[in-house]
Amino acid sequence: MPEPLKGVWTPVVTPYKQNLSPDPERLIKQCRWLLDCDCGLAIFGTNSEGNSLSVAEKIDLMDALIEAGLDPKRMMPGTGACALTDAVQLAAHVAKTGCGGALALPPFYYKPVSDDGIFAFFAELIERVGDARLKLYLYHIPPVAQVGFSLELIERLIKAYPETVLGMKDSSGDFEFTKRVMAAFPGWGIFPGNELNLKEAMELGAIGCISATCNVNPAAIVNLFKTWDQPGADEKQAAINTVRKTFAAHPVIPGMKAVIAYALNDPDWARLRPPLMALDDGGRAKLFADLKAIGFSLGI
Amino acid sequence: MPEPLKGVWTPVVTPYKQNLSPDPERLIKQCRWLLDCDCGLAIFGTNSEGNSLSVAEKIDLMDALIEAGLDPKRMMPGTGACALTDAVQLAAHVAKTGCGGALALPPFYYKPVSDDGIFAFFAELIERVGDARLKLYLYHIPPVAQVGFSLELIERLIKAYPETVLGMKDSSGDFEFTKRVMAAFPGWGIFPGNELNLKEAMELGAIGCISATCNVNPAAIVNLFKTWDQPGADEKQAAINTVRKTFAAHPVIPGMKAVIAYALNDPDWARLRPPLMALDDGGRAKLFADLKAIGFSLGI
Repeated sequence: MPEPLKGVWTPVVTPYKQNLSPDPERLIKQCRWLLDCDCGLAIFGTNSEGNSLSVAEKIDLMDALIEAGLDPKRMMPGTGACALTDAVQLAAHVAKTGCGGALALPPFYYKPVSDDGIFAFFAELIERVGDARLKLYLYHIPPVAQVGFSLELIERLIKAYPETVLGMKDSSGDFEFTKRVMAAFPGWGIFPGNELNLKEAMELGAIGCISATCNVNPAAIVNLFKTWDQPGADEKQAAINTVRKTFAAHPVIPGMKAVIAYALNDPDWARLRPPLMALDDGGRAKLFADLKAIGFSLGI
Repeated sequence: MPEPLKGVWTPVVTPYKQNLSPDPERLIKQCRWLLDCDCGLAIFGTNSEGNSLSVAEKIDLMDALIEAGLDPKRMMPGTGACALTDAVQLAAHVAKTGCGGALALPPFYYKPVSDDGIFAFFAELIERVGDARLKLYLYHIPPVAQVGFSLELIERLIKAYPETVLGMKDSSGDFEFTKRVMAAFPGWGIFPGNELNLKEAMELGAIGCISATCNVNPAAIVNLFKTWDQPGADEKQAAINTVRKTFAAHPVIPGMKAVIAYALNDPDWARLRPPLMALDDGGRAKLFADLKAIGFSLGI
């Protein structure tokens, strides 16, 4: 089995121009900063508003990042889609361009669907892409997608495609489930979907985390990832959890974008694409007051 | 306000070739038969596996039907998508080709979303399409999409776009909600999402229904639609409900496709695209036995 990716990754928030088209220039700058922080680029995740972008928009953004000289090995684009043909097109592009991995949602419109149906979807996907460079990380986020991966389904996928299905992001919000997956598949590439239990997860064999709040707090999270087995890790974990919980008490994507807009003195960053909405002035003031109260630097 | 569409419509099931690509020839034939039964074509609905098709696949199928001479005014394609840009592309094509209406899901990945966010999505959609021929029917199906339309949101959309937002399909499965919508917006175009209460719905001002089982039982449902206020309607309602409930006791899309495959002696019709799956032999035998027990003709 190939070595899975490791480290701290973030679903990079997607900037929009005034006409709501994605803004490659701003995204490139933000991604450069995240890479400088040693944070990988899980572009087109849930917190990237990845599912508010068309396939063509995602491919264009990926190409823009690569053309700007960013290392595709440090990218793990979201490739999930409801339509098999869309998922194939995205995953094929990710493989062809040499991205480190593809973060793959299950098809999420129909529900309930059987494990057999999800397995068939991934089998078709992998065989249609037909590219040994494709490295899939299953994206388990039932609170949003409503469709997820059972332990039995994960096992079938790993057994059928051991060279391709290299790990998962667990955004179940249920750390007990994360622990069950790590216990069931030792050595497999498990990324908890947030940093709240990063130290314990690393002790149990996780390979890092993929977390929204790395968009705004990457240095501290990366630091804990690198020092989780050293003295002071508990304090670091507590400090990053305080930041996480403060953001989580507000609408997360609009909140992170508001902070980035403020830090970069660039109001365009605050924009979201419908159905998601930017914070209004009151919501923004409340978030900033809460962040100030915990001593969080808005300088990102 | 323009006159809304009326009648019985069905989310036409989508046939696939062996390579899982959509099969325009088989779809054209089936649509001709449905039109002969006086049943409108709500292609790309939930039961059409509409969300398992890419935007390009939907546009190609629409074009194939129109090129084959089918009347676009008798088509109400599903145009919902998670990405605004996809929804705009589909709705623009529907308007441009003169389709009778567009059946519009709200964006369904992010949840929960605010009424403001869904309103902003539809406002952008309508203004970007910018075509007076666009006639939207809101598609309310929270059991699947998880995101739906509140009465307040419906009212805002009708007030803002009275020439465009002409009605809705209510697949909430909650006839009390359907009644509340009809009471709140008299004269607006309400289609219950099944035929179980068709007679009562017509008495209360519905303009027909859009129902999966019209794929396999169109003549009887159309007959009730035309004679709901005449003697014998209660018996007709009871008879079509027996058929509906029998299909609903099995996986509905695979079951309807199995029946069509049998009736047309064309096994290719039984195919679904993952994550949905065809019935296995046992499931098919059970469905057929149940249909035989109620005297349902498999001859469609």
